[in-house]
Amino acid sequence: MKFELKTTDPGSKARAGKITTDHGEILTPIFMPVGTAGTVKGVHQRELKDDIHAQIILGNTYHLYLRPGLDIIQKAGGLHGFNGWDKPLLTDSGGYQVFSLKEMRKITEEGAKFSSHIDGSKHMFSPEYVMDIQRIIGADIIMAFDECTPYPCDYGYAENSMHMTHRWLKRCIKRFDETEPIYDHTQSLFPIVQGSVYPDLRKQSAEFIAEQNREGNAIGGLSVGEPAEDMYAMLEVVNDILPKEKPRYLMGVGTPENILEGIALGTDMFDCVMPTRNARNGMLFTTEGIINIRNKKWEDDFSPIDPNLDCYSSKFYTKAYLKHLIKCKEMLGSQIASVHNLAFYIWLVEQAREHILAGDFATWKPKAIKQFMTRL
Amino acid sequence: MKFELKTTDPGSKARAGKITTDHGEILTPIFMPVGTAGTVKGVHQRELKDDIHAQIILGNTYHLYLRPGLDIIQKAGGLHGFNGWDKPLLTDSGGYQVFSLKEMRKITEEGAKFSSHIDGSKHMFSPEYVMDIQRIIGADIIMAFDECTPYPCDYGYAENSMHMTHRWLKRCIKRFDETEPIYDHTQSLFPIVQGSVYPDLRKQSAEFIAEQNREGNAIGGLSVGEPAEDMYAMLEVVNDILPKEKPRYLMGVGTPENILEGIALGTDMFDCVMPTRNARNGMLFTTEGIINIRNKKWEDDFSPIDPNLDCYSSKFYTKAYLKHLIKCKEMLGSQIASVHNLAFYIWLVEQAREHILAGDFATWKPKAIKQFMTRL
Ligand SMILES: [Zn+2]
Ligand SMILES: [Zn+2]
Repeated sequence: MKFELKTTDPGSKARAGKITTDHGEILTPIFMPVGTAGTVKGVHQRELKDDIHAQIILGNTYHLYLRPGLDIIQKAGGLHGFNGWDKPLLTDSGGYQVFSLKEMRKITEEGAKFSSHIDGSKHMFSPEYVMDIQRIIGADIIMAFDECTPYPCDYGYAENSMHMTHRWLKRCIKRFDETEPIYDHTQSLFPIVQGSVYPDLRKQSAEFIAEQNREGNAIGGLSVGEPAEDMYAMLEVVNDILPKEKPRYLMGVGTPENILEGIALGTDMFDCVMPTRNARNGMLFTTEGIINIRNKKWEDDFSPIDPNLDCYSSKFYTKAYLKHLIKCKEMLGSQIASVHNLAFYIWLVEQAREHILAGDFATWKPKAIKQFMTRL
Repeated sequence: MKFELKTTDPGSKARAGKITTDHGEILTPIFMPVGTAGTVKGVHQRELKDDIHAQIILGNTYHLYLRPGLDIIQKAGGLHGFNGWDKPLLTDSGGYQVFSLKEMRKITEEGAKFSSHIDGSKHMFSPEYVMDIQRIIGADIIMAFDECTPYPCDYGYAENSMHMTHRWLKRCIKRFDETEPIYDHTQSLFPIVQGSVYPDLRKQSAEFIAEQNREGNAIGGLSVGEPAEDMYAMLEVVNDILPKEKPRYLMGVGTPENILEGIALGTDMFDCVMPTRNARNGMLFTTEGIINIRNKKWEDDFSPIDPNLDCYSSKFYTKAYLKHLIKCKEMLGSQIASVHNLAFYIWLVEQAREHILAGDFATWKPKAIKQFMTRL
């Protein structure tokens, strides 16, 4: 994996760059659609390419490990072979999902024991095993096994957890560096900064992560319920420390506003289930603002969902038709809204990139946030 | 609407023909995907055209009347305007759905009073009102209001019901002929033969329906639980009476075998929810035979679902991937299987048509049934 920094915006820390993987290029800043179980819910693979213009998608290690399981994925030639997506892939470490199991998991220094949410079967994720699993899944970018602290989280817990995440990281790196990719492409391991909402912990963690000198770095444990201002403050602390010449990935973020603010603070990669989850509930992000398609006002609005996007679902279907489908809980409603919202998110980061390259990102950003966050 | 009979198979009563509507041509025999609430479940409009190659789709009057309602549909310029499908459309009369409401409906000579399955609100469908509703929905082909008798059904009930259906038909025709299309295209009204599984009633009904001299005729009340042999026997009685120079539509049928047998008996049009409903349960109809994708044997079969169809979903995705999606109840699984099954059904009737035109339908049919009904 290679990262080239093209431009930094004169009025902010926003950067335009390019990641090159064995599965192709990713222009940054970038948003990555989430394909939990090897599928972006409701979206065909060709829609990801032709309508959404996704450059990289995510898979969740926890879900893929349970179903279809490692044996099937390996026989398929990895996740690329299994789901037919031949562009870059990123997998998370499974930590976030395992820790969300609450009563069904137990964390020790060794790793996390947990019971499957599907059949209750017992499993153990250790840093080493999570590297082995992600070798088998075969994503271009894989993540270290970390504990994503909840919010709120007291200082003592956050500090201890951060240190354990750091110790786990050393074990991840050791295993990763001792093993080879299984398929015909290289893989890169991104470590994850933790430290909750405590600036000194975030600083300490960012320094530790930077020292590992991997090909890219991630920031976790944010957008878990804390005020947006806290998130931006942590991002500022962390991005000042993480090296400029490597991509920075803010995990699980967020709204269009969060993403533009994250970009302004020097972040390059984002992922979130929000565009697809909210789509299924009828919340649309458009180039004109936010639409709750369940509102009565859209029932006889026969204008396209969003004519400004190069996306069949956004341009072909009308707001009135989509409102009808969502109201009737018709599958096609979730499909259209999901494709549309993802097309908007990719368009949003493309717009951001153009303004960074043009040197006017800092003046464009507040207007863009105002427009895209307006409730229509 | 115009119907041209091209060829009749020398070894059976199978016919190849062409229906011309103001929204384009329909080559017969044809299968019509069911788009209940103005959407074929899980299928994009462009997939209906480009992957499934559908020539006409159905809408359900009962569902569309309740949601989005007549006001919205009329403002949209009819169902064509509302859902963006610019090819031929057919609507049923709503009778079948209303009668299925059991305790929530009451039938009198005037019509059927019923309570909405959605909010319990009370409504009345009369033959006249159902014509008015279908004028507003604006399908190219609309159906008379009939009672679809259940199976089993005693002779007395079937006879009385048939006579009421005939009286209702006269009222439908009167209202239809007294009114004009609302939009810029013509509409054709098809009457429906009833009579349960009683040959003499079927004969009587077919004669009554034929006398009305409409542009096409339909056969209802079959495929409601009776043995297939009874269905074929009724079809033989009825098709001998219904005029050759008009299309014959067998409502709600059926399996690939039912359709090929129906074609052999001189039927031109079919519709059924089976391809999409079974798709959502993991049952696939393919050019090689029937697949239950939930079976373990498919979990590591990385061959395409069906490489013989000109359909993205059939060719791009593998059986193993689809099995995984259906097992995980992922929306994309239902989507892929629905598009694939419909593509197969349209391919099936296209194949039948080619063999009718080639004059070897009667020898091809038994081999085709054996192959397509084999469980793989
Ligand atoms: Zn997240
Ligand atoms: Zn039916």
